Amino acid sequence: MKDSPQDSKEYLQKRAFFDSLLTIYGRKPVLEALEDLSLPVHKLHLADSNRRDQLIARMEQLATERQIEIARWDRKGLSRISKNARQDQGVALDLALPHYGTTEAFLAEQSARKEKTKYELLALDGITNPQNLGMIIRSACAGGMDGIILPRKGCAQIDPLVIKASTGTLFKMRILRCEKLASALTEFQQQGVRICGLSSHAQQTLSDLGGDAPTIFVLGNETRGVSEEVARQCTQLLRIPMHNNVESLNVAVTAALISFRHQR
Amino acid sequence: MKDSPQDSKEYLQKRAFFDSLLTIYGRKPVLEALEDLSLPVHKLHLADSNRRDQLIARMEQLATERQIEIARWDRKGLSRISKNARQDQGVALDLALPHYGTTEAFLAEQSARKEKTKYELLALDGITNPQNLGMIIRSACAGGMDGIILPRKGCAQIDPLVIKASTGTLFKMRILRCEKLASALTEFQQQGVRICGLSSHAQQTLSDLGGDAPTIFVLGNETRGVSEEVARQCTQLLRIPMHNNVESLNVAVTAALISFRHQR
Repeated sequence: MKDSPQDSKEYLQKRAFFDSLLTIYGRKPVLEALEDLSLPVHKLHLADSNRRDQLIARMEQLATERQIEIARWDRKGLSRISKNARQDQGVALDLALPHYGTTEAFLAEQSARKEKTKYELLALDGITNPQNLGMIIRSACAGGMDGIILPRKGCAQIDPLVIKASTGTLFKMRILRCEKLASALTEFQQQGVRICGLSSHAQQTLSDLGGDAPTIFVLGNETRGVSEEVARQCTQLLRIPMHNNVESLNVAVTAALISFRHQR
Repeated sequence: MKDSPQDSKEYLQKRAFFDSLLTIYGRKPVLEALEDLSLPVHKLHLADSNRRDQLIARMEQLATERQIEIARWDRKGLSRISKNARQDQGVALDLALPHYGTTEAFLAEQSARKEKTKYELLALDGITNPQNLGMIIRSACAGGMDGIILPRKGCAQIDPLVIKASTGTLFKMRILRCEKLASALTEFQQQGVRICGLSSHAQQTLSDLGGDAPTIFVLGNETRGVSEEVARQCTQLLRIPMHNNVESLNVAVTAALISFRHQR
């Protein structure tokens, strides 16, 4: 026996907490997040090299008022945290987002349920444009999707540009992280989840999709579409019928048409 | 009697031709348009100050092959044509787009019909972001809208950025120009057209909208929404119901949800 059940539970809770951390950076995004009392902030990171101007003073004041830990680093230490030395402006902030987790944790949660629930997720395959990523999150959140699978490989990562384009909805949306999308989808498939790849070449259309099994809609790169490796994990392909021989839609628009399709 | 009917018809045809002209500028957009044989090009404009490099030589060659008139101007003359001296790079091109016209001509065409047809248009009120304008055109074209009303006042104008964001759909979509949107809408209203303003405060939802009268959907500025002056011309207001207390959608996403709403 490796762990007593309690230890194991503690370990899982700790791990879930670290999985829920999202680090943002840059003076304006960090200040805005500190000012937003609805956001659960974990830790403020400051570089020693920062000139102590009004903005930094305001961040320190807000952190103190909110009883948020402040960590101080040399320039190099801070860039290890922000992972973006060029744009962090000497400032980073860890958010502990309750809706931010992993596909693994989500699947474990679903298996633990007695009754299967119907859920709908978007999965992003090679979405590299931060503007599009932000708009996808915004549309999916407004349309009531249950989550977005965002792999660490091959997609834009959440940064100030994405947060801005999501107009704050990032903090409400369930974001499920995984390493590689294809591997994560295999696990969903094994649990009986339908994996629908969006493709302009598909026979079946989005509105043909019936039934109420849990479903994942895979959105591919705007130029290349869904990658071959990911397409192999799809249980079906769907297209959105278009007029005037238009070949494709902006990926955030596709996300919206999927997310809002239950409204006639 | 001012004109014989024939003169008047000739005059109207000439006028319709000039209303159909769209001037684009910049070396890449102009070269791409010249290379696209499906685009009806009227005239190529070149500044004398251009260095005669490969790109210019290729444009001249294409124009000669396609029997397109080349007009040569001094720098100032060219900027009067491009209306954008900063970005024209000494090159402009008049396209004669069959789908490009005025609200006036469209209304005259509709009155001339014996049977009323049902049509659906988008009208843009204060859409200033070229990226959004291009995406709206793309979505509306793919969704099968019958046209887009684009006022000269208060909206982004069609430029290379918009053409790029529309991914070529601009050349397929019926674009109806007018001076001020509010005045144009008054004329539609007088012909019994429903004018639906999109507003997050509306009681009625988009899916409540029944009937099959001709309809115009008015999209407002992303921050301020539909302007007061234009809202006064609306016969009804509609909202798109949203989850998670999301307040608004990207305007191009809204355009897509309207344009594709006939697909279940």
